[in-house]
Amino acid sequence: HRVISRHLLPAVCFVWQIAMIILFGVFIRYDEESDTHWIEHRRKKNISTNLENDFYYRYPSFQDVHVMIFVGFGFLMTFLKRYSFGGVGFNFLIAAFGIQWALLMQGWFHHLDENDWKIKIGVENLINADFCVASCLIAYGACLGKVSPVQLMVLTLFGVTLFAVEEYIILELLHAKDAGGSMVIHTFGAYYGLTISWVLYRPLLSQSRHLQGSVYHSDVFAMIGTLFLWMYWPSFNSAIADHGDGQHRAVINTYLALASSVLTTFAISSISQNNGKLDMVHIQNATLAGGVAMGTASEFMITPYGSLIVGFCSGIVSTFGYLFLTPFMEKTLKIQDTCGIHNLHAMPGVIGGIVGAITAASASESVYGQEGLINTFDFKDAVANRTVNIQGGYQAAGLFVAIAFGLVGGALVGGILKLPIWGDPADANCFDDDVYWEVVVTEKVCSTLKFHV
Amino acid sequence: HRVISRHLLPAVCFVWQIAMIILFGVFIRYDEESDTHWIEHRRKKNISTNLENDFYYRYPSFQDVHVMIFVGFGFLMTFLKRYSFGGVGFNFLIAAFGIQWALLMQGWFHHLDENDWKIKIGVENLINADFCVASCLIAYGACLGKVSPVQLMVLTLFGVTLFAVEEYIILELLHAKDAGGSMVIHTFGAYYGLTISWVLYRPLLSQSRHLQGSVYHSDVFAMIGTLFLWMYWPSFNSAIADHGDGQHRAVINTYLALASSVLTTFAISSISQNNGKLDMVHIQNATLAGGVAMGTASEFMITPYGSLIVGFCSGIVSTFGYLFLTPFMEKTLKIQDTCGIHNLHAMPGVIGGIVGAITAASASESVYGQEGLINTFDFKDAVANRTVNIQGGYQAAGLFVAIAFGLVGGALVGGILKLPIWGDPADANCFDDDVYWEVVVTEKVCSTLKFHV
Amino acid sequence: HRVISRHLLPAVCFVWQIAMIILFGVFIRYDEESDTHWIEHRRKKNISTNLENDFYYRYPSFQDVHVMIFVGFGFLMTFLKRYSFGGVGFNFLIAAFGIQWALLMQGWFHHLDENDWKIKIGVENLINADFCVASCLIAYGACLGKVSPVQLMVLTLFGVTLFAVEEYIILELLHAKDAGGSMVIHTFGAYYGLTISWVLYRPLLSQSRHLQGSVYHSDVFAMIGTLFLWMYWPSFNSAIADHGDGQHRAVINTYLALASSVLTTFAISSISQNNGKLDMVHIQNATLAGGVAMGTASEFMITPYGSLIVGFCSGIVSTFGYLFLTPFMEKTLKIQDTCGIHNLHAMPGVIGGIVGAITAASASESVYGQEGLINTFDFKDAVANRTVNIQGGYQAAGLFVAIAFGLVGGALVGGILKLPIWGDPADANCFDDDVYWEVVVTEKVCSTLKFHV
Repeated sequence: HRVISRHLLPAVCFVWQIAMIILFGVFIRYDEESDTHWIEHRRKKNISTNLENDFYYRYPSFQDVHVMIFVGFGFLMTFLKRYSFGGVGFNFLIAAFGIQWALLMQGWFHHLDENDWKIKIGVENLINADFCVASCLIAYGACLGKVSPVQLMVLTLFGVTLFAVEEYIILELLHAKDAGGSMVIHTFGAYYGLTISWVLYRPLLSQSRHLQGSVYHSDVFAMIGTLFLWMYWPSFNSAIADHGDGQHRAVINTYLALASSVLTTFAISSISQNNGKLDMVHIQNATLAGGVAMGTASEFMITPYGSLIVGFCSGIVSTFGYLFLTPFMEKTLKIQDTCGIHNLHAMPGVIGGIVGAITAASASESVYGQEGLINTFDFKDAVANRTVNIQGGYQAAGLFVAIAFGLVGGALVGGILKLPIWGDPADANCFDDDVYWEVVVTEKVCSTLKFHV
Repeated sequence: HRVISRHLLPAVCFVWQIAMIILFGVFIRYDEESDTHWIEHRRKKNISTNLENDFYYRYPSFQDVHVMIFVGFGFLMTFLKRYSFGGVGFNFLIAAFGIQWALLMQGWFHHLDENDWKIKIGVENLINADFCVASCLIAYGACLGKVSPVQLMVLTLFGVTLFAVEEYIILELLHAKDAGGSMVIHTFGAYYGLTISWVLYRPLLSQSRHLQGSVYHSDVFAMIGTLFLWMYWPSFNSAIADHGDGQHRAVINTYLALASSVLTTFAISSISQNNGKLDMVHIQNATLAGGVAMGTASEFMITPYGSLIVGFCSGIVSTFGYLFLTPFMEKTLKIQDTCGIHNLHAMPGVIGGIVGAITAASASESVYGQEGLINTFDFKDAVANRTVNIQGGYQAAGLFVAIAFGLVGGALVGGILKLPIWGDPADANCFDDDVYWEVVVTEKVCSTLKFHV
Repeated sequence: HRVISRHLLPAVCFVWQIAMIILFGVFIRYDEESDTHWIEHRRKKNISTNLENDFYYRYPSFQDVHVMIFVGFGFLMTFLKRYSFGGVGFNFLIAAFGIQWALLMQGWFHHLDENDWKIKIGVENLINADFCVASCLIAYGACLGKVSPVQLMVLTLFGVTLFAVEEYIILELLHAKDAGGSMVIHTFGAYYGLTISWVLYRPLLSQSRHLQGSVYHSDVFAMIGTLFLWMYWPSFNSAIADHGDGQHRAVINTYLALASSVLTTFAISSISQNNGKLDMVHIQNATLAGGVAMGTASEFMITPYGSLIVGFCSGIVSTFGYLFLTPFMEKTLKIQDTCGIHNLHAMPGVIGGIVGAITAASASESVYGQEGLINTFDFKDAVANRTVNIQGGYQAAGLFVAIAFGLVGGALVGGILKLPIWGDPADANCFDDDVYWEVVVTEKVCSTLKFHV
């Protein structure tokens, strides 16, 4: 058994990467704008300049999103005193795998060229792959320190698959709008991770409780993650928004919602302690709630003060979650949520879905302009006659689909991950890099020393 | 009294955030390019493509500036051994508040639509808000470790207000140019902070001298701040420069000035020690002096070698400042300047203002071209007949306005902050996160241990 | 002698920076697009909008490359327990010097205006200067901890000079393509550094073996470098690629190759240890091999699955290098390669050159389109009649030129650096910041303590 588990990670990495190569060989090609034939297409379309290539509209936003996925999520998860390698390292592994699988899954559902059955990829596909994998990284947050890298690979394989399906249902079939993914990414990812964590409940986790905390510098490392997520969130919510005013507005709304949630997070964090002191866990996480909650409505005419209100409320809700809900969920619901994703992603994600539905339902031609309304909600083709009220209903339906996929998918995948073959750590060895990483010996001595003091 | 001070931070955060929501509701709307009516305006203006939206000209620079504000300034202030939470955390708090207030203050002075008395915001307003708040973060540098978060909120409220007024006087009334803010941001912010620090002078600060230093890893954290400031400074100085050649030139000039100041900083740092060793404080700060000093003239035809000279001199001046002026100011002038902002922002800022005035006064049609000269200095409308000599004089006048606002504003705000109601730390507890943050216990033991060894 | 060595660094910094100022004064001017006359040129060229300024095509990529040079390389070299200051600090110093010298050297070879014998610089020159200096930072990796800052300045002076010559031969004379610099940057830089390290071989380096390792948090710092290199590598390989589809394709190919090498790195790292544990050294370095190996062919129609295969192989090769080649090279070949640049840059660089040659030789009109083929390989003017087979041959020739320049240049410069005048550290003081930096005293005590425990 030890031999199997020792070779499981290399085997999974190899087999899956080879599978990716074969599937990419069969299915994936460059799209029109990234193919050398572009010069001919350009001429046919009467485009005079290379600047019209979508690359120049999307690439700066893509890079910001890319930083959020790898440095943002990665460093946010370095806060544990002895699990920083696992936090940033396994995040790296599953994101690098997930984006490949996402290009295929999302391609099959959204970008399959029916002439040759190939998926044609460009920079927008790269952004969408990063988005897709974000949902799995959120789910990782609930399981941080308690699962093996192979379990995370499985979590990601199924997570990306489920994501592509629910995204297809929500965005294509229901025609709901969700530019920043409050529903599709955050709500789904959070409930997916929480349900897995519930299935994998460890009654004796307290055996490694002494490692389930931070040290001074690990908290500073985590702030790197927090700040890169916070700063680039306007890019996240605008990256695939409509060109021009849509991207512009998504940035403004997200910027404001995030600023607002910082202040309410500091307020609740301070007032909740007897001595008025601030808690780094709140600052590292709940300050981001405004970005999550602005994911669906960021493209809409929610108004600048509307964005502030959304950030205001989500910062409060998220911080209260860390104070009261996380302990409650652990004790009563048997859900061990290491990073508190319920507070940072699930609740603000649901708020975002609801805000999106309400904002959509209350949209009007007087505010949006006739063409603006059509553009913003893409009331074209099959949905040309949809009214904003009905759109609001479909938005709400989208939120339920995201939750349902998270719960059902998480239960199924949690069941798979419960099989005793994945090499997960013993209860006493959770939150300890030493299980999966070569850790320098002098360090271990020093760490022991600290506990003896 | 303790009860008040315990509830003061939450109260201030809540009340001010609610005030922001109300004021945004009354005053702030999307501008033309970020409104859904953009498609109609575009057609009226005969613009064929969404790429003409200012978003695509400005957003990448905005994101770089955003990183400088939150990660650059934030991590630069993590160098103290036990004040990294306060450095990066309070920077986060006051920047998130300041940008909201700046959107209002700058809007009232610069962007008020006289038809409906609304402020119409777009991406350029976001950049300007980040710029505005930078001046307050500079001021924070002088007070680092010695003030409470509520004092910082007050410092920011007044700082942003003063900034908007002096910016209006310098840029609009005097029609001085200051794309990268040598005068408006750095000179003002530094003298504002230094004066506050002078008013708040603590004769017994030596009681916490054992905490006023760095440890090995806190110095490495601070280098994150240094490098992100250094790398993105070309974006800072070009972010609101004129489109096309103006932005292009501002980048080149800033890039060169920064490179040059790195070499002179290393030289002076090494030569100043008996053993030739380098001091991390110099490397973390004085290497940035070239960027500060190039703030005003970055748009001008200062020539590449002119930029190198500016960086050369400012790197020397700044490092000498750390060596001689900071101790002198503390002993003789009773100004305790934790981060040495006099060396990094005040002196290079003044150099930048002077360089700008000289470069403007010596501009000529033979170098700039007739149209180029008009474009660069905006010699249009009310100032259509201004000569470059007179422009040089107005640039110099702008520098004095910035200094005056810093000194007078700092004295007033310092007086307010001296009131014994803000919960500032005792002399023996300065530079200690433990006053305002929950700090893990084992850490405190370990830190004590180190001092006993 | 001590007096000389104490004053050597300041003297070199001053003299060289003054030389830069003089040479820039004689040779360097703004190019057309960054000059105030741009408005006139624009009109002559019938360009209606400022968006056509190359600044907007290139600047976001430039900033990403800039981050790779200063934060990427800098933090990647912070992994040693007591050499983080030297890693990030000396990287900062030599990069800031190198980019100035590179603007001159590359300007003389590539951008000299024959009318007035001036070099006209714009944003593309800044990117190229960053590229050029990357080769010296790679070389630094082999020497990390064993050389003085003055030696690094000399290494950079000659490295940039050699780079400009070999780049001229490879790109201009041989007309080889190398957008991301597998050959020009990585292969040259790695062999340059390895040869220097071979000449400077220290038989008694084991005297400082106790410092040649990481501690927990220094490994986390290094991950900052790894991730920023990894995330922005698509920008690196596309920054000077052809506008439009070329940049677009370079991004996709690099993104995929990098993702693929992450999985094979984790696989080989895990399987190579008896206990299946992962080694941070591999994760920090070999995950980047795909980016190096995709440097030459990134612009070509290598296909998405071709990119995955390149990343797959280079991740394996690179990790095996860390496992077997580095110890072998140290013992048998007497090459002490601190960062393992042979594994991260030399071998993947050579792979990249070979892949580039094969991909070029097998290019066809059916895949590229007639115009696409001409555009991609610039089959114009003097090389208008070159076939793809011949192009493949010239690509291979380029690889040999890069290796030859690295070996011969490294031998010469190594000989210069072996002179006993540069103040390099004693064998027992290698990998110790205390030689060149003021390090806080309590820290030194603590570090001693750890070894006594």
